[in-house]
Amino acid sequence: DRPLTVIAGPCQLESEDHAQMIAGVLKEACNAAGAQFIFKASYDKANRTSLSGKRGLGIEKGLQVLQSVARANDVPVLTDVHNEAQCAQAGEVVDVLQIPAFLCRQTDILLAAGETGKAVNVKKGQFLAPWEMQNIVDKIESTGNKNILLTERGTTFGYNTLVADMRSLPQMAQTGYPVVMDATHSVAQPGGKGGSSGGQREFAPVMARAAASIGVAAIFMETHEDPDTAPSDGPNMIYLDQMPGLINLLMQFDALAKSHPLTF
Amino acid sequence: DRPLTVIAGPCQLESEDHAQMIAGVLKEACNAAGAQFIFKASYDKANRTSLSGKRGLGIEKGLQVLQSVARANDVPVLTDVHNEAQCAQAGEVVDVLQIPAFLCRQTDILLAAGETGKAVNVKKGQFLAPWEMQNIVDKIESTGNKNILLTERGTTFGYNTLVADMRSLPQMAQTGYPVVMDATHSVAQPGGKGGSSGGQREFAPVMARAAASIGVAAIFMETHEDPDTAPSDGPNMIYLDQMPGLINLLMQFDALAKSHPLTF
Amino acid sequence: DRPLTVIAGPCQLESEDHAQMIAGVLKEACNAAGAQFIFKASYDKANRTSLSGKRGLGIEKGLQVLQSVARANDVPVLTDVHNEAQCAQAGEVVDVLQIPAFLCRQTDILLAAGETGKAVNVKKGQFLAPWEMQNIVDKIESTGNKNILLTERGTTFGYNTLVADMRSLPQMAQTGYPVVMDATHSVAQPGGKGGSSGGQREFAPVMARAAASIGVAAIFMETHEDPDTAPSDGPNMIYLDQMPGLINLLMQFDALAKSHPLTF
Amino acid sequence: DRPLTVIAGPCQLESEDHAQMIAGVLKEACNAAGAQFIFKASYDKANRTSLSGKRGLGIEKGLQVLQSVARANDVPVLTDVHNEAQCAQAGEVVDVLQIPAFLCRQTDILLAAGETGKAVNVKKGQFLAPWEMQNIVDKIESTGNKNILLTERGTTFGYNTLVADMRSLPQMAQTGYPVVMDATHSVAQPGGKGGSSGGQREFAPVMARAAASIGVAAIFMETHEDPDTAPSDGPNMIYLDQMPGLINLLMQFDALAKSHPLTF
Repeated sequence: DRPLTVIAGPCQLESEDHAQMIAGVLKEACNAAGAQFIFKASYDKANRTSLSGKRGLGIEKGLQVLQSVARANDVPVLTDVHNEAQCAQAGEVVDVLQIPAFLCRQTDILLAAGETGKAVNVKKGQFLAPWEMQNIVDKIESTGNKNILLTERGTTFGYNTLVADMRSLPQMAQTGYPVVMDATHSVAQPGGKGGSSGGQREFAPVMARAAASIGVAAIFMETHEDPDTAPSDGPNMIYLDQMPGLINLLMQFDALAKSHPLTF
Repeated sequence: DRPLTVIAGPCQLESEDHAQMIAGVLKEACNAAGAQFIFKASYDKANRTSLSGKRGLGIEKGLQVLQSVARANDVPVLTDVHNEAQCAQAGEVVDVLQIPAFLCRQTDILLAAGETGKAVNVKKGQFLAPWEMQNIVDKIESTGNKNILLTERGTTFGYNTLVADMRSLPQMAQTGYPVVMDATHSVAQPGGKGGSSGGQREFAPVMARAAASIGVAAIFMETHEDPDTAPSDGPNMIYLDQMPGLINLLMQFDALAKSHPLTF
Repeated sequence: DRPLTVIAGPCQLESEDHAQMIAGVLKEACNAAGAQFIFKASYDKANRTSLSGKRGLGIEKGLQVLQSVARANDVPVLTDVHNEAQCAQAGEVVDVLQIPAFLCRQTDILLAAGETGKAVNVKKGQFLAPWEMQNIVDKIESTGNKNILLTERGTTFGYNTLVADMRSLPQMAQTGYPVVMDATHSVAQPGGKGGSSGGQREFAPVMARAAASIGVAAIFMETHEDPDTAPSDGPNMIYLDQMPGLINLLMQFDALAKSHPLTF
Repeated sequence: DRPLTVIAGPCQLESEDHAQMIAGVLKEACNAAGAQFIFKASYDKANRTSLSGKRGLGIEKGLQVLQSVARANDVPVLTDVHNEAQCAQAGEVVDVLQIPAFLCRQTDILLAAGETGKAVNVKKGQFLAPWEMQNIVDKIESTGNKNILLTERGTTFGYNTLVADMRSLPQMAQTGYPVVMDATHSVAQPGGKGGSSGGQREFAPVMARAAASIGVAAIFMETHEDPDTAPSDGPNMIYLDQMPGLINLLMQFDALAKSHPLTF
């Protein structure tokens, strides 16, 4: 099995300079640790808890920034899309189209994403069992696209809380596709602060280490140099200056895990 | 408080004749029982469990059928929409636009629905706490539209199962808007049959009676003359020939409940 | 089907005078409404959240008080037991032995309760599916005792929260035994206040009305003249002065429900 | 931090020979891997799903066998107790008294276990939030006993299913006491086979690896040379012949984790 891929970046694009700064730090950390790196950032937060939450740069400006980041750092880039038209447009620029968890059952966006020929990363809905992801895989595969990733980002567990079921990782892997652990959203507390989501960033490394020890293909983490001032998802983001150490450690868990693959 | 409204119809439009037949039966039953009636049917099932599930008549044909049903039976009609463009198009024809549960956090569709000036019925996402609906109400109200309904249709409860929390009804009512109980989707078992959802239609009247006893504004029920052959949601739909008796009984619970309103 | 039974009383015995006062109010209310009444109170709270929580009068004094209440008011009395020895001792005095939810899988206490020949009310564990109660029924029936009641009191739903699944009532009724809705514990928030449980007493009538509309055999409610000073379960108890009106209303829902029994 | 302790053995004692055989294999495996070993087995299964489930050797015979195992292998032994009297009796023989999850809120058994002066391992109830364990710790500490372990064994997640929340491990560690991951019960499916529990033994190593990567003090695993014929918990037990390899691997994860301790 291939070494761990790190999918990381800020939750949303704030400016080109900011994106380049974060991409630079992460690229260097991944290089040092021997991890493959995919830069992640959103151009639009289309499902904010409340109307007053910042939505981001927008698709035109956002894709420009992503393209700049890709070129300047020679890294693949990932962004999330919110309707069929955006799939085609974003697919011109990014390497991985990500389907948000709330939209993971919307057939048309899955087909549109598949038809771009780009890699498609589907986040498992908070309302889905891991084994239901096979139906989603089937939808994308119907377009001829077999470049699919499946991400665990927590399941609804009572109100305002998610739980990450570690069984989900090997269960989704039974589709034959790479599985990603989203270590930061799985410790979010949706709506936990009334008009915005809370989060438990102190537990993000817990999720990342646990998933690495199981041998996932990739770990997804959102990061910021000052999470408390980030425009979205601050409570569950990891401090940027902790990322190099964490990535280095995760590579050690990954090496140990992949030298002893779990079998099912 | 006004007497109970019944929102009912087949899950998806199959043909004009079929829709008219069901609407006729329900209209007569509601008239006999003194219930207000809103006919519900979908022109497109945009989030089927699997790709092979039937999606329906499509928006053009579907809206024509809904308009015919509205005119022939002199009833308001409700349908669900799946993106911003559909809001404007469907808003030309129907009286109530419904936002599907999976899409209830997507800001743009909420705003587009609000801007039509038509009533907007938002289904509470399976991943949301009841009190998070205030944020959704705020999004729609920002368009100046205060014609909003909020629907309980079950919350994720482990895998492949929903649970309907009766507290959700008074909690959502604290927004000041009418609350609807979806008695048939709340007994669905999402993905419970692998490539499609299961359901426990025998418990739909349980949910309907419980909600009526609490004094909800409306009860939503999908129905079919032969649910086992329906193109979608058959396992949780109520037999059409049982609807008149059930509606009549619900009106009796409703009258008793509304003569003794719950206070919070 | 027989009219609704009301199982009610304070959470724990505080003194004989207090118990008699509450029993008197409830007896009169039930008589006026045509409900059968069973007085409930605990002599020991054996599983308080924290060590500092008051445990009650103890079994000797407690059973004396229960006997006095039974005689003075000519009512059956119910209390909960916590081990095998207590079953025999309490069984000398009370009419119904109640098995606490946490203990509902302990085989020895179920057998000891069954062997007293008294009625046995088992609260469904917060960790059990409704259909698992058949195994518990089988344990008690093995003693020859077929005087069994099964109570819904909420299921674990994330952390510090319970949810009452209305389907549980007809599902447990499939055992053939009477089903009880515990309207006050199902709105408790276990451990919700750190060192003690929180609760949402405003929703207890919601649960009671919903259950009555489904046609349960009995409704269980804890009550106190001043819940905020009660030694246990105050946050979810109903004010005593609201009980007569609530009982009267529940009897109306009960009559309507039982004239239209649900079939499964 | 000290290296990982392995708490392992068959679910229930079947015979002395059987216990000695399993203890011998595990002792050798732990010695080879550098793990501390505690032998675990039950003399009575007091809360079987159904009455027909085998309960075990009984306390007299069971304690004799545990003593023999302890002496023959020079290992500490752990067993679970089900009432106050058993605490004193078992405390004469075993090194660790274990409080079953269903009983973890019963004050008297916690106090009785504490008073033996032996180590007390409390399994977190399936109905408890991790932070509620502080109240349980306080109960035991009130006896002067500060030799406490806290075990995660899964939380109720819908019906017939448990989920192991990895956050629970660091959250319980905030009590200051060692935390144990029960890798086999957390993959049980309570009542999942009707008259007995199901299980997903293939995922037990997933839980064990994840917990080791977080740096838990101990991992608890039930094992059997032929789980499908074991008298209880077969579906979630690990094959005995897989234990040496698993223990060896867990020690590698443990070393890596403890060289990079998580901080909260």
